[in-house]
Amino acid sequence: MSQDKQSYSAAIIIIGNEILSGRTVDKNTNWLALRLVDLGIKLAEVRVIPDIRQKIIDTIHELRDGVDYIFTTGGIGPTHDDITAESVAGAFGVDVVQDERAYKLLLDHYGAEAELTPARLKMAMLPEGADIIDNPVSGAPGFKIGNVYVMAGVPRIMQGMFDHIAPSLTGGPPVASVTVECALPESVIADDLNALQDQYPQVDMGSYPNYQHGVFSTSLVLRCSDEDLLAKAAEAVRAMVARHNERNVTY
Amino acid sequence: MSQDKQSYSAAIIIIGNEILSGRTVDKNTNWLALRLVDLGIKLAEVRVIPDIRQKIIDTIHELRDGVDYIFTTGGIGPTHDDITAESVAGAFGVDVVQDERAYKLLLDHYGAEAELTPARLKMAMLPEGADIIDNPVSGAPGFKIGNVYVMAGVPRIMQGMFDHIAPSLTGGPPVASVTVECALPESVIADDLNALQDQYPQVDMGSYPNYQHGVFSTSLVLRCSDEDLLAKAAEAVRAMVARHNERNVTY
Repeated sequence: MSQDKQSYSAAIIIIGNEILSGRTVDKNTNWLALRLVDLGIKLAEVRVIPDIRQKIIDTIHELRDGVDYIFTTGGIGPTHDDITAESVAGAFGVDVVQDERAYKLLLDHYGAEAELTPARLKMAMLPEGADIIDNPVSGAPGFKIGNVYVMAGVPRIMQGMFDHIAPSLTGGPPVASVTVECALPESVIADDLNALQDQYPQVDMGSYPNYQHGVFSTSLVLRCSDEDLLAKAAEAVRAMVARHNERNVTY
Repeated sequence: MSQDKQSYSAAIIIIGNEILSGRTVDKNTNWLALRLVDLGIKLAEVRVIPDIRQKIIDTIHELRDGVDYIFTTGGIGPTHDDITAESVAGAFGVDVVQDERAYKLLLDHYGAEAELTPARLKMAMLPEGADIIDNPVSGAPGFKIGNVYVMAGVPRIMQGMFDHIAPSLTGGPPVASVTVECALPESVIADDLNALQDQYPQVDMGSYPNYQHGVFSTSLVLRCSDEDLLAKAAEAVRAMVARHNERNVTY
């Protein structure tokens, strides 16, 4: 990455049949999305894919040149369905080898060599050349190879791993945001909002309809890394919403 | 689709900057995943992508030949950031045109032609040749073109649209599942579970670690469309877990 790079982007790959079958609700995407905003890294895409070796390899190949960072969650445990390490190795054309740092971490965690069953030793098998990502919760580490950061699927463990790597990630200026809540349906304000978006092209204006108890309302989210411009655009949006509110009251 | 086809698959495309920025937690994936299991349709992949026309087009092109159904959510409202209809039209190489059925639905909903502002009329602009998907909650319909079903992003509206199309979808035999809860960490039972997976190759055995209050446990999820075989495999897994529990008690 060049030093004068202005923006940084990431993709998330959630590896897990349990998300696709609906058994488990994915909690990792939203947690990571919010952390990436804080770090000034734009989340460009999320993919949820099954525990299939070739699918993991293809997905990494499709994403890795388009973003600065790839974060994966899931599939690094001791069971037969944990195939992330060998699949990521496949994506980079390297073998998995027993990593001595990972072996030491597992030995410390389980206390004796006799406890390092074949299943547990599997968690010390990492792609050749990978760096360790510490696991502050259980023994088995995550790892980094190229721009791919491989983390656990259990949210508490994934979060611990991400906190460990966050200081090493480079981001751009954080994008500030302002939300203007509007008690009217989207379609009432849409024409005027379109005009304001044209007037402030540098400010990203998102319009998100809400529907609750039979009533529509709208959240208008403005995002921009220039805070002065953002404040000005937000003021204009608030004034537009106020005009519509008055008009609706007089009906 | 041929009549003797045994299995059916789907992909979901969540179109929404608000999910990628972490502002909104995606609730549509899990709801759809569970409904697809009931319908005997395997969810092969989920992608969360931004509101960018070319990205939507590329994603549809990448996914549409590999699955029977694509379901999209988000971006069909009246504002400038609602670009799903024109993007899906682009993916199919057709224009968007004012759909007379959609126009009629909007007229019914808003009550008078004078109420059909440019923003609201935008919701009647659909890809040429698309079929309408009724929106039981608000006026603006979803649509279907090819194997792509385009639905709203607001969960209650999306759910209403999906319930409307569900009877028209073809699925295979539903996959039954049994969950065996195990109070031990994954690594204790992993070797034996691997052996059982080898013994029952037709049964998909997933192992999902849980971590709560500093204690690890494991959920073992067995899935198979043959219920007798599933019951037999579940019995073997339960017996294996019971053996480990006894052993751990005597330590």
